[in-house]
Amino acid sequence: MSPKLPSWNEGTAKQAILDFIAAVTEEGGDFYVAPDDRLAVFDNDGTLWSERPLYFQLMFALDQVNRMAPDHPEWRHTQPFQAVLENDMDGLLAGGVSGLIELVAATHTGMTTDEFAAQVRDWTATARHPDTGRLYTEMIFLPMLELLRFLRRHGFTTYIVSGGGIEFMRPWAEQVYGIPPQQVIGTSIETQFEIRSGKAVLVRLPVINHVDDKEGKPVGINRYIGRRPVMAFGNSDGDHAMLQWAASGEGPHFCGLVHHTDGEREYAYDRGVHIGGLDRAWDEAIERGWTVVDMREDWKQIYPFENIENG
Amino acid sequence: MSPKLPSWNEGTAKQAILDFIAAVTEEGGDFYVAPDDRLAVFDNDGTLWSERPLYFQLMFALDQVNRMAPDHPEWRHTQPFQAVLENDMDGLLAGGVSGLIELVAATHTGMTTDEFAAQVRDWTATARHPDTGRLYTEMIFLPMLELLRFLRRHGFTTYIVSGGGIEFMRPWAEQVYGIPPQQVIGTSIETQFEIRSGKAVLVRLPVINHVDDKEGKPVGINRYIGRRPVMAFGNSDGDHAMLQWAASGEGPHFCGLVHHTDGEREYAYDRGVHIGGLDRAWDEAIERGWTVVDMREDWKQIYPFENIENG
Repeated sequence: MSPKLPSWNEGTAKQAILDFIAAVTEEGGDFYVAPDDRLAVFDNDGTLWSERPLYFQLMFALDQVNRMAPDHPEWRHTQPFQAVLENDMDGLLAGGVSGLIELVAATHTGMTTDEFAAQVRDWTATARHPDTGRLYTEMIFLPMLELLRFLRRHGFTTYIVSGGGIEFMRPWAEQVYGIPPQQVIGTSIETQFEIRSGKAVLVRLPVINHVDDKEGKPVGINRYIGRRPVMAFGNSDGDHAMLQWAASGEGPHFCGLVHHTDGEREYAYDRGVHIGGLDRAWDEAIERGWTVVDMREDWKQIYPFENIENG
Repeated sequence: MSPKLPSWNEGTAKQAILDFIAAVTEEGGDFYVAPDDRLAVFDNDGTLWSERPLYFQLMFALDQVNRMAPDHPEWRHTQPFQAVLENDMDGLLAGGVSGLIELVAATHTGMTTDEFAAQVRDWTATARHPDTGRLYTEMIFLPMLELLRFLRRHGFTTYIVSGGGIEFMRPWAEQVYGIPPQQVIGTSIETQFEIRSGKAVLVRLPVINHVDDKEGKPVGINRYIGRRPVMAFGNSDGDHAMLQWAASGEGPHFCGLVHHTDGEREYAYDRGVHIGGLDRAWDEAIERGWTVVDMREDWKQIYPFENIENG
């Protein structure tokens, strides 16, 4: 029999996960959960893949600005585009959130949903991470992939519940995580139905429909799934409300946090950072006995490509 | 072998359905569709259950006004509530859409999602239809139930895509149609995350998030499922865009309309009515060869309870 969760070191985190899954799948046991209710929700950025130096969707937006620039000569003299084209990250960040929103709007809207999906697929097939030189979709956490598969083998349905764009994740989430589009929940924008050349299309508009972050995560879970999950995994305060939502169900539940402690193999950060800050959720995890996964201690291997290099 | 779709009379509608399902499930065939892509979407009001004298969700709202009235003495002198309490339908309809919206807001918001689900369950377990004296959830179309089951047996995933409230349908759709909450798409409102007595709850707000009708149906399908369905079934112009969306996919598709032609066993209506009007979608169905189901001719039996009475 192959070992369970082989990339996880033996320890309290791995044991807590295995104990929970054993308990809720034991027919006749006190903590049994029927398969229909075995819902597990996972944040994406920082939980299933890395989120440094910036959320990978922002890296996509920056790459798209460069790709689209020949059709937009005015961008060479207009912020925030000029900063992107000149690779001036300080200048870009000086523009604050409104500058980033402008970049996302320019690169994520105006096209049809099919066209956008094709652009995302092109990018994930070719773009390289600045630190590792790897495809972004290679920078996923092997221990979490194992957990997703292990859960599905035990009758769970696995969902992504991310602050990232729902249509940014869907084109590759099935191939990379085994999670099909209808199990991807994220931030969404409005789309407009049109008939173009006799075919129905949906055009992406620069209008937010749902921000799937913080208190928006339980709202999204309820809107898309309509049941409370029994397992929730995140890595930052953006996941706090989602964990509270899972913890408030009637039956057994499991709440987990991925703690970025490994500055050598990945990145190390928690309190007081802008992207992926872990603060209040960490406090509550300690208080309530939620499982905090220490990436350096609990994970034998982080990325799937490591054992190719080392082994 | 039990006959296929036993409540359907032999005819072009039944044959078109069986031919389509046979074609898309024939491995190696020209029209084969992989199970992951076998998505079938169904309107609810007028397609899976009746919608006369009013959408059943409006009947629920009226019943709720009567139930809640003792706590709202002011309603006895305030429209549109007074009209409801005096059973004055003309007075109610004189208030137009804004009056109906006010009724829905008063009866559908302010409580938690769990409280609302319990109210819907109480209502569906007890409320009676004014014409038949039956539970509303008994006034479902047996031939469509057979079709839903037949599709699922052939690897399809069946979805509801309705203008009705998503949280009005989810409490009973699984038991009545075999369609679980995560496969129910409908009109949704905003909810607000709160911690009450240490438990996370969502409170229903009188703010629309998504109107899942007309052009909103393909928007909802894309937002929730992220794939184009290969089969779509509706009964009114509110389903037109959804049928166009299904018809614009790359592969094979089936578009169907339920035509309410049976004034004796159900209700007869099509063009020029306010609820469930069938006009432009019917024209396009004829033009494009979509399947139009004639309830009187094509269905041996309409409601599941009929054979108990007649047999």
